[in-house]
Amino acid sequence: MNARSVIRIGVCGLGTVGQGVWTHLSRIRPELESRLGVKLELTRASVRDLRKRRSVKLPASKLTTDALAVATDPNIDIVCELIGGTTLARNVTLGALACGKVVVSANKALICAHGAEIFATARRHGGHFLFEASVAGGIPIIKALREGLVANRFPLIYGILNGTCNYILTQMEEQDAPYTSVLGEAKRLGYAEADESLDVQGWDTAHKAAVLAFLAHHTWVKPEQMVVEGIDRITPDDFKHAAALGYGIKLLAVIARDFATDELSVRVHPTLLPESHVVAKVSGVFNAVSVRGDVAGTTLYIGRGAGRDATASAVISDLVDAVALLKNDRRAFITARKSSAPEPAMKPCRLAPPEHIRGRYYLRMTVSDEPGVLAQIAHVMASQRVSIASVIQSAQEPAGMASLVLTTHQSDEQAMRATLARLARLRCVREEPLLLRIGDFSD
Amino acid sequence: MNARSVIRIGVCGLGTVGQGVWTHLSRIRPELESRLGVKLELTRASVRDLRKRRSVKLPASKLTTDALAVATDPNIDIVCELIGGTTLARNVTLGALACGKVVVSANKALICAHGAEIFATARRHGGHFLFEASVAGGIPIIKALREGLVANRFPLIYGILNGTCNYILTQMEEQDAPYTSVLGEAKRLGYAEADESLDVQGWDTAHKAAVLAFLAHHTWVKPEQMVVEGIDRITPDDFKHAAALGYGIKLLAVIARDFATDELSVRVHPTLLPESHVVAKVSGVFNAVSVRGDVAGTTLYIGRGAGRDATASAVISDLVDAVALLKNDRRAFITARKSSAPEPAMKPCRLAPPEHIRGRYYLRMTVSDEPGVLAQIAHVMASQRVSIASVIQSAQEPAGMASLVLTTHQSDEQAMRATLARLARLRCVREEPLLLRIGDFSD
Repeated sequence: MNARSVIRIGVCGLGTVGQGVWTHLSRIRPELESRLGVKLELTRASVRDLRKRRSVKLPASKLTTDALAVATDPNIDIVCELIGGTTLARNVTLGALACGKVVVSANKALICAHGAEIFATARRHGGHFLFEASVAGGIPIIKALREGLVANRFPLIYGILNGTCNYILTQMEEQDAPYTSVLGEAKRLGYAEADESLDVQGWDTAHKAAVLAFLAHHTWVKPEQMVVEGIDRITPDDFKHAAALGYGIKLLAVIARDFATDELSVRVHPTLLPESHVVAKVSGVFNAVSVRGDVAGTTLYIGRGAGRDATASAVISDLVDAVALLKNDRRAFITARKSSAPEPAMKPCRLAPPEHIRGRYYLRMTVSDEPGVLAQIAHVMASQRVSIASVIQSAQEPAGMASLVLTTHQSDEQAMRATLARLARLRCVREEPLLLRIGDFSD
Repeated sequence: MNARSVIRIGVCGLGTVGQGVWTHLSRIRPELESRLGVKLELTRASVRDLRKRRSVKLPASKLTTDALAVATDPNIDIVCELIGGTTLARNVTLGALACGKVVVSANKALICAHGAEIFATARRHGGHFLFEASVAGGIPIIKALREGLVANRFPLIYGILNGTCNYILTQMEEQDAPYTSVLGEAKRLGYAEADESLDVQGWDTAHKAAVLAFLAHHTWVKPEQMVVEGIDRITPDDFKHAAALGYGIKLLAVIARDFATDELSVRVHPTLLPESHVVAKVSGVFNAVSVRGDVAGTTLYIGRGAGRDATASAVISDLVDAVALLKNDRRAFITARKSSAPEPAMKPCRLAPPEHIRGRYYLRMTVSDEPGVLAQIAHVMASQRVSIASVIQSAQEPAGMASLVLTTHQSDEQAMRATLARLARLRCVREEPLLLRIGDFSD
């Protein structure tokens, strides 16, 4: 297969991101063509509804409702899968890869659910799967991990990967507003989906964490193997308590590998971050990814994590990489680092058991305001060898109730789970306790 | 030229960075080889003094004092130029490129002085010149600009590009310590060179700004065409005045292009940044680069800007890119984006004249503490149509002197230069005024 003079691009899905890709790519096509030395053609696009009004105007001849026909069209070299979901998107992706095409995807849910199958299919048929847009929108974090930091192993990656959650947390903190009212406002502004659960319960962050963990450690970790906790039980009071302790609260993905034991942990949870920490300053819909490399040290990447244009920027960077792949002999590339193959030399790792995931914790409870309560709670924690570092007790509505906020010294997930289960059984504990992690990330 | 089974690497210069590259590359070689599908050989290294003790032990057969012999050795495919300076480094670089080799360089001074010649030589002979390590050390900022953000034009890039200056400014602010004592401490700790002038007067930052401006705008801007001001006249009092106004002080490179007029300005100067700005929080030897893209929005990159390991991380990422180039037909690649050629489709731009470089300013003067002084100064500023926004006057040693700190509303470089020249001629102004810029960078 030799250098081509025209590269043909098909777009499956013309929603917000698809229209953004089509618009920006049409605009900058002449410059990219001159840079790449090939003609680029936006050949066909698939949509669900041909009659829907779109900001992008396409001739009817370029539109179809048959996404699979675009994916397997022998005239198309690169397929952008921007449908979303994991059913049709999977068929489109596998269909295109089975034809040896390059697939460019923004679909973290798909990669998380079917990544192993997708990469195996790409490998088998000489196709390629590129996914810069799947994590952290306009920030080129996939390229940084795969290429820019290729000399590094990654003991710790953490960050804010969901702009909706970060917007909600920022508003709650700045406006002293309850979760439900901020969520409503976010929906009105289009920052949250009608069904917010994927975002606020941490699953979208977990999908992205799975993608980053695969890139860094060549291991697929399913969300159900992670600790995944959302932001929907956080209250304005938690921000006040955290501030009193010198912290802000962010929903973080944390991917930690101990290279001595080769244990990996991937988790998603609201995290207390020291107010002075740069990541604690990242507000609104912005994302941030901190990458500790064993050679480069820590690098930090901040930018818009979603939205039409930021995502289109990432998709177009993959399209340009795809053109470079197609201009060269694909077979020469298949064992190279641009290949979709996971790097075989990387030592495998196993998931850390809960008792090896250590940290400090913040625990908020609503308790009966009566003698002996603190003694009972302290006894439960002592029985699990969880050592209390600080206590804030305050009166709470209705009368007869108190709010109790504890922080712990170093403990582990297993001890905290057992502690929570036993605390919930105490009669004086009137509501399921809320557990937050304290992020002790140096540098 | 077909896929090769062994890629041979020569290293010119085994100083701190060269030893770092040799050490880390030797360590991770098996993994990279498996990933890349080729054998990597560290073939030869050149040094100035064969007898010098090094942490890296090489057999005598691999060492030479003849850097040019390494650069032009027909057995060597990739040459790492880590000599520094612009004389021998230039000969080594041009010599290797003229043989069609790939040169990997960390040498911003060389690129700034001879970039046009280097890229033309690479183009002519089918060689490649890669330079990730030349700016911002371990941060893959070159790759982000060239590849990750390929869909974007860049109206504004700014950042902290010199770790030595940022360390000094951070210490001055945190310790309330004068410049000279912090500089002495920095030298003792190895954070500053014995001759500090390249760093503290802003020239090293200017070299890096030239590299970024070339990448973003395909225009070579020489330091003598930029505004370049250093940090050596800043005092602890400036930090106090800035803090009273809500600012910190950072030495920034600012690369701004107006796409309406196609005017480009590149400047390096100490800058007042709002305390809440994330870049104002970047302390110590860390670098930060903020990139405003017209599609992706603003992305921000933070990390270690120098040092053996961070620089080695960047050099090794270029080495891996170099291997990918060599594994493929070079000629197919020469018009592709990995090519050393500047992209011809980019519209040329011209340098903005000083009257078009607009901003707000901070001005500190030592004046005679006598009636009418403020009137004289205000008169000079009014005559240049520079509008005063705030005034802080305070007594100063010795008696009879006062310190006057003014901030201005929007003005421009030309008006401020004229203002400074006229102020310096006033009898009541007892010392050359210090001018700092106020950084109004939204998002």
